[in-house]
Amino acid sequence: MIIFYAQNINDNTALITGEDMRHCSKVLRKRPGDTIILIDGEGWFYEATITGMERDYCQASINRKWKGYERPYKLEIAISPVKNPSRFEWFVEKAVEIGVDTIVPLICSRTEKRNVKMQRLKNIVISASKQSLKAKFALIKEPLEYGNYLSRVGSDGTFIAHLNENTGYFGKMIAPRADVTILIGPEGDFTPEEIKAALDKGIKPVSLGASRLRTETAGIVACQIVNTVNELYNEDANS
Amino acid sequence: MIIFYAQNINDNTALITGEDMRHCSKVLRKRPGDTIILIDGEGWFYEATITGMERDYCQASINRKWKGYERPYKLEIAISPVKNPSRFEWFVEKAVEIGVDTIVPLICSRTEKRNVKMQRLKNIVISASKQSLKAKFALIKEPLEYGNYLSRVGSDGTFIAHLNENTGYFGKMIAPRADVTILIGPEGDFTPEEIKAALDKGIKPVSLGASRLRTETAGIVACQIVNTVNELYNEDANS
Repeated sequence: MIIFYAQNINDNTALITGEDMRHCSKVLRKRPGDTIILIDGEGWFYEATITGMERDYCQASINRKWKGYERPYKLEIAISPVKNPSRFEWFVEKAVEIGVDTIVPLICSRTEKRNVKMQRLKNIVISASKQSLKAKFALIKEPLEYGNYLSRVGSDGTFIAHLNENTGYFGKMIAPRADVTILIGPEGDFTPEEIKAALDKGIKPVSLGASRLRTETAGIVACQIVNTVNELYNEDANS
Repeated sequence: MIIFYAQNINDNTALITGEDMRHCSKVLRKRPGDTIILIDGEGWFYEATITGMERDYCQASINRKWKGYERPYKLEIAISPVKNPSRFEWFVEKAVEIGVDTIVPLICSRTEKRNVKMQRLKNIVISASKQSLKAKFALIKEPLEYGNYLSRVGSDGTFIAHLNENTGYFGKMIAPRADVTILIGPEGDFTPEEIKAALDKGIKPVSLGASRLRTETAGIVACQIVNTVNELYNEDANS
């Protein structure tokens, strides 16, 4: 199933612009009268019929809408950018596919690359969401300094993954259907001062398993652990 | 910790060649008398002292050796190659970091790209193993046609992940400490004939969760689910 993102949906009309417009008209050669599936990035799917094709936009009339799948938890991953931007982009793509609500690029003492290309990351969120049939887009926040982030985050359901510490397994520390925030440090890990500041605030230290993981792999592993714990305890599901 | 791969370890002497030799001598400027850590790719770590530096190899004398961490399960992932080789290479790197024993490139009816660059994949296994401190290398098998693979694999502990089927969650179908084999299909999924052939053989169908995943993401998700189930039920660990 191919889905398009419509930035403007009002009442019963949707406007498709930009890359989605080109894909719709040039690649898939959709024409007025054709039916397409849209998402609004806020959690809804729409079935719509194309009513007009202009040079820069495509207009469609909504036939029906329905709410997309909602995960039983909210997940925020605050994670240090890494030197190689394509590795961070890869993390964003895979986290969106598996399921994440918020990603915060976390600027730590040992973070080497202190900026990210926001627009590029947002485009990756859109394409990964369309690809994996997610109607609600993950939010990519502007990069935040570690101290600044700590002062904003609550301690309940918040965890810090770090090396060299005899900590409990992340998957054992989280409950199904509970919201989770996890902090993941740069190559070379958080500094002892950063860890102390988190623990002082009541953030719980966790291990992601026996393997030493790269930063971007740790992000995906954390994301999948939350997903697995929820799927394992999902009584509704066909088990 | 930086570790090197020594292809030749006999009695108390190791020879380091190729890329590892260059990295050891040119990048890290190790010299005779320096101590280094080696792996043999078969599960052992070695502490060794450099005794000689030649143009093409570096010789070291072993001081002591110890067995690396062994996961409580063996995992084989038979997975279709994907169009974009870098996505498959990414899968191999991440699976090695998380933990996998055998990867079989599985050539299915709908597999578009029917070959892989074996040497490149093997080099990725080596570098990801060194990076994640794994002394034993995952085995990358030569690509196998689906029917051929089915005729060789047992049904016990073997699963097939596929879409559009009301199947149980993979994580609920596997036991901790049990060996697992999982088949993952190409973009567009296995054909109904391929699925039927697997089920006829007693291979169990599974779901990897609520999300629609790309092939390479499904491979990593499967790998992490096996890891999580084992970590969750690991009584020894600090919980």
